[in-house]
Amino acid sequence: MKQSDFLFRFLGLLLLGLTMDFAHGATDPLPSWNDTASKRAIVGFVTATTTPTDPQYLPPAERIAVFDNDGTLWGEQPLYFQLAFALDRVKALAPEHPEWKTQEPFASLLKGDLKGALAGGEHAIAEMVMATHAGMTADEFAAVAKQWLATALHPQTQRRYVDMVYQPMLELLAYLRANGFRTFIVSGGGVDFLRVFAEEAYGITPEQVVGSSIRTKYELREGSPVIARLPEIDFIDDKAGKPVGIHKFIGRRPVLAFGNSDGDFEMLEWTTAGAGARLGLLLHHDDAGREFAYDRESSIGRLDRGLTEAAKRGWVVVSMKDDWREVFQSRGSTN
Amino acid sequence: MKQSDFLFRFLGLLLLGLTMDFAHGATDPLPSWNDTASKRAIVGFVTATTTPTDPQYLPPAERIAVFDNDGTLWGEQPLYFQLAFALDRVKALAPEHPEWKTQEPFASLLKGDLKGALAGGEHAIAEMVMATHAGMTADEFAAVAKQWLATALHPQTQRRYVDMVYQPMLELLAYLRANGFRTFIVSGGGVDFLRVFAEEAYGITPEQVVGSSIRTKYELREGSPVIARLPEIDFIDDKAGKPVGIHKFIGRRPVLAFGNSDGDFEMLEWTTAGAGARLGLLLHHDDAGREFAYDRESSIGRLDRGLTEAAKRGWVVVSMKDDWREVFQSRGSTN
Repeated sequence: MKQSDFLFRFLGLLLLGLTMDFAHGATDPLPSWNDTASKRAIVGFVTATTTPTDPQYLPPAERIAVFDNDGTLWGEQPLYFQLAFALDRVKALAPEHPEWKTQEPFASLLKGDLKGALAGGEHAIAEMVMATHAGMTADEFAAVAKQWLATALHPQTQRRYVDMVYQPMLELLAYLRANGFRTFIVSGGGVDFLRVFAEEAYGITPEQVVGSSIRTKYELREGSPVIARLPEIDFIDDKAGKPVGIHKFIGRRPVLAFGNSDGDFEMLEWTTAGAGARLGLLLHHDDAGREFAYDRESSIGRLDRGLTEAAKRGWVVVSMKDDWREVFQSRGSTN
Repeated sequence: MKQSDFLFRFLGLLLLGLTMDFAHGATDPLPSWNDTASKRAIVGFVTATTTPTDPQYLPPAERIAVFDNDGTLWGEQPLYFQLAFALDRVKALAPEHPEWKTQEPFASLLKGDLKGALAGGEHAIAEMVMATHAGMTADEFAAVAKQWLATALHPQTQRRYVDMVYQPMLELLAYLRANGFRTFIVSGGGVDFLRVFAEEAYGITPEQVVGSSIRTKYELREGSPVIARLPEIDFIDDKAGKPVGIHKFIGRRPVLAFGNSDGDFEMLEWTTAGAGARLGLLLHHDDAGREFAYDRESSIGRLDRGLTEAAKRGWVVVSMKDDWREVFQSRGSTN
């Protein structure tokens, strides 16, 4: 063999290798996921349900995937982000409410005593949420929430909350959509808060967000129609409310459900009890180094029953520590 | 010129003419619409809002179009079709309810006295709807409704109800979707009834149907989860409820709204009060020959205020008689 022939062959093989590597890299839809059983379960499910000759094939109309938001698509510690928003809004609105100085839970919060403000439990939280989420039009609320999300920083990471979305989940949402799935948020959080950022953060349009809501009323103000927000609960989209919300808003049983807490238990149960191919997933926050580690004992995002029953129900427990190469969205990346 | 040359030229021109005719026919997205001002308003709106250089251009995310169902996408005379379903179900369920023999409005209906059964007005109708729409699981209800829709015939046309959808509206839905619009039903009818047929009839998926609903509850029956239908109103998606339903389910103000009765007034008002390009349309049933003629005095589908105010609000009144070349979907055609 002439030297030049050898060189050409060598270069050819090198080029082939590079091309194959590139092709492999370019076609991995989930680069932030380690090559573990969790990733293989996801890819296996998507491949089977989108391959017409596969017995698990699903027509596109049935490819509905639902995702919890807090603790599943973005963080939820040390406080639900929407609760941080409500607390900030109480402080911002305090000058208009002199009565809050002596009225709990507002009084404690305004004195800087968060623990005291939250001591009243769900009732205290509901009071602060209503005081900050109702009594304005839908457009006014959206503007306030948008402004807060654009500027407020997480106390520990000093990132904006919208920058605390999980990169592996963004990849999963995009991968599912590229395979004909429709991706929905089904969250215990407020639907009108979620809709302010879900499209930009996750590529999920407002009509694909299901959440808790307060009542609204259509009325004319000086001749212009508005949606007025009333201080009254309309729907709580949590626990057994999640399958109800899915039925109400989506109207079809999902085939894939992804949550992270016992608030998602019924959503996974409802999804995976259907006939045919189904996939239930729970994100386990076990990564104190890169994020947080909490499960059975946490007051926020408690995962107890789900962790106990996942194996027998065939649900995949995704370990943040072992299954994710990256946690947070790279700063500055776009969707 | 030789005779053969002449023949070739003649054939060439003929072929060119045929080709042009064919091209014209193939590119008219609304062949069942006459070439009137209504059609021009629709095509003008879609062209302007989808042309990037046009000042009225709308990004795809904002292209939300909402449609009433009864009297807009399919017929509604002489009775709302869902009410015909409820009445048929009362008769079918009567053997299980001996008490109905002496209980109004059931007693009158079972004696064949429809007028007597409806004499109790909304309350009587609500009783019959609850008796036939609740007390079963969501899956059971869907199966019953599907079976009825597959077989029941309209008393006058002897067509199946699902064959009484309007061909020009099917073309309009397809035309909008082809131009990046998302098409929603926003109906006073029951959302779970609509979802049984909307996908096949209109190409509108369940999550793009907004309607009235009864409460549901998630529960386990012999270990299997079900959505149980409760005899309790959850939401009435009519009149001022339509903008509320749009806000609740879609979460974004539409840019196009199409209705046919005063029950759609607020939906059109809310839609067209927004900034930028907007289109409000009302179908006027003025075609006694091919369908029905009714408006200001009708108890079903009353169109009074809308007809009075359409011009000053810039809404397009579509005349079934003048604007539509065809009314009903051709039998046997598919979507």
